[in-house]
Amino acid sequence: MASRAVSVADLVERARAGEARAVARLISLVEDQSSKLREVSAALMPHTGKAHIVGLTGAPGVGKSTSTSALVKALRAQGRRVGVLAVDPTSPFSGGALLGDRIRMQEHATDDGVYIRSMASRGHLGGLSVAAPQALRVLDAAGCDVVLVETVGVGQSEVEISGLADTTLVLLAPGMGDGIQAAKAGILEIGDIFVVNKADREGAQSTRRELRSVVTMTDRPDGAWKPPILLTVATSGEGVDEVASEIAQHHDHLVTTGELDRRRLARTRREIEALALTSVRDRFAHLSGDTRLDTLAADVLTGAIDPYAAADSLVENL
Amino acid sequence: MASRAVSVADLVERARAGEARAVARLISLVEDQSSKLREVSAALMPHTGKAHIVGLTGAPGVGKSTSTSALVKALRAQGRRVGVLAVDPTSPFSGGALLGDRIRMQEHATDDGVYIRSMASRGHLGGLSVAAPQALRVLDAAGCDVVLVETVGVGQSEVEISGLADTTLVLLAPGMGDGIQAAKAGILEIGDIFVVNKADREGAQSTRRELRSVVTMTDRPDGAWKPPILLTVATSGEGVDEVASEIAQHHDHLVTTGELDRRRLARTRREIEALALTSVRDRFAHLSGDTRLDTLAADVLTGAIDPYAAADSLVENL
Repeated sequence: MASRAVSVADLVERARAGEARAVARLISLVEDQSSKLREVSAALMPHTGKAHIVGLTGAPGVGKSTSTSALVKALRAQGRRVGVLAVDPTSPFSGGALLGDRIRMQEHATDDGVYIRSMASRGHLGGLSVAAPQALRVLDAAGCDVVLVETVGVGQSEVEISGLADTTLVLLAPGMGDGIQAAKAGILEIGDIFVVNKADREGAQSTRRELRSVVTMTDRPDGAWKPPILLTVATSGEGVDEVASEIAQHHDHLVTTGELDRRRLARTRREIEALALTSVRDRFAHLSGDTRLDTLAADVLTGAIDPYAAADSLVENL
Repeated sequence: MASRAVSVADLVERARAGEARAVARLISLVEDQSSKLREVSAALMPHTGKAHIVGLTGAPGVGKSTSTSALVKALRAQGRRVGVLAVDPTSPFSGGALLGDRIRMQEHATDDGVYIRSMASRGHLGGLSVAAPQALRVLDAAGCDVVLVETVGVGQSEVEISGLADTTLVLLAPGMGDGIQAAKAGILEIGDIFVVNKADREGAQSTRRELRSVVTMTDRPDGAWKPPILLTVATSGEGVDEVASEIAQHHDHLVTTGELDRRRLARTRREIEALALTSVRDRFAHLSGDTRLDTLAADVLTGAIDPYAAADSLVENL
């Protein structure tokens, strides 16, 4: 059979009807930053805003993939449609880095209520912030009730993932340099739900205690969400239903307090900003027939101007 | 004694005369993105361009800090003034993460021909690319013949560091997942000099062989630099003089072929671009009394416009 050109509207309709291939195709279109990206984005818009986006983060070795897989199982048992987006913000390469994770997710491969996708952020500026929101919209429009966004946790990516999610789940494990982890104020600030995984290992209770003392120390206004600290053994599924239940409760809290809207507004602001900066960068590169930046750089190298003055001149010439 | 306000011109003069406190003060000014940043940058410009910037990168555990320290020693023995900038691009926090490195560098603390500085990149956009070049200019203006830039190697940071340097040194160690390392084409492409450290351990020769087969496979034009692969034991200093000598030879090569100018031009282009984008982002935030982005984000959330259209509108209103 000859393959036919498929319209974006068609793909979106088929994705909404639950066709996995159409979902995969749409995510490829947004990940590849294809010429259809804008069209895809516009076509998806009317069908988005329903999915609860849950970010999972934590240091390597805490069991993120296993926890994600266990959570998918728990959510599926409740009859909810689930999307999984596994992001590797530090990898300039696509696919490979997350192969292991994909294999661990295999048990859900034949479940047509689950979409699983790996994604590497390409390039630097706004890599994750530009492509990931679009991929999340595809999964949202495809009717996922919950989308789990999993990231390899290294430095900034943890904070970035919290910027993509409605609810952020921070995973820890016993005896993984707890002192250091607790000192990482960044992680503690972004967590809506904390999970000490591998709770059958020694030190789980003390990790929970340590976390609790830090989390309860934080000043919170009246009526604010108090991040729970749960224990799980993701490999056996122990405690995972409680995590799913806390995720649902946090969603209720977000809706009731109006915090969901505030978080999504802030997120959309950042997304628009990242897109606008990408577009401005393209314009810089093409100013005066591609030579403006070169001329300015040469002037900086001779010491004729300083880099700040050069940047001002570039912006003025937009 | 009452402390007096010190002018930037004064600080630059004192830094050029070799006063370590003035160097430290200037780097703090650029790192803190203080209001004096532009003034500092302009004052430094006439005194820059002499230092040879050498980037050191490699996975955690290959012995980067020890190698840096050993290289400082070798370069000092040749009577050269040396600056060290240790950068942690993944840490949103300053100082702490690199404490261990600083301690290892302690042996040079009393040598007034060596400046050592740790730096964390703050914030996301252009963090490393904005602050680090200014810090390098301070060390350059202070009369350093060679500045070593060391980074914690995770993903993109390796490539970023090569963007800051004239010469990039890639460190490896035997038995650290060589197959994976070799597959990391990104690392192999940026290396001007490869060093297999911990060469007294088993597997050093096979790591070198594996590297050589990949490095020699790469197509290079006639007269191009052929990256050498050296063996060192940084803890004992074995092989480190050869590394220092290859660094000097690579510098000669860069000068002779005009490649030094080309690399510096490309680097300065990226720096100007990053500064310009930072300035544009500030303007976005203040468009129409800080409300423009909020209005657009609200429109995207209701589905009235898509994020690309919102970004276009933002750029048009610059």
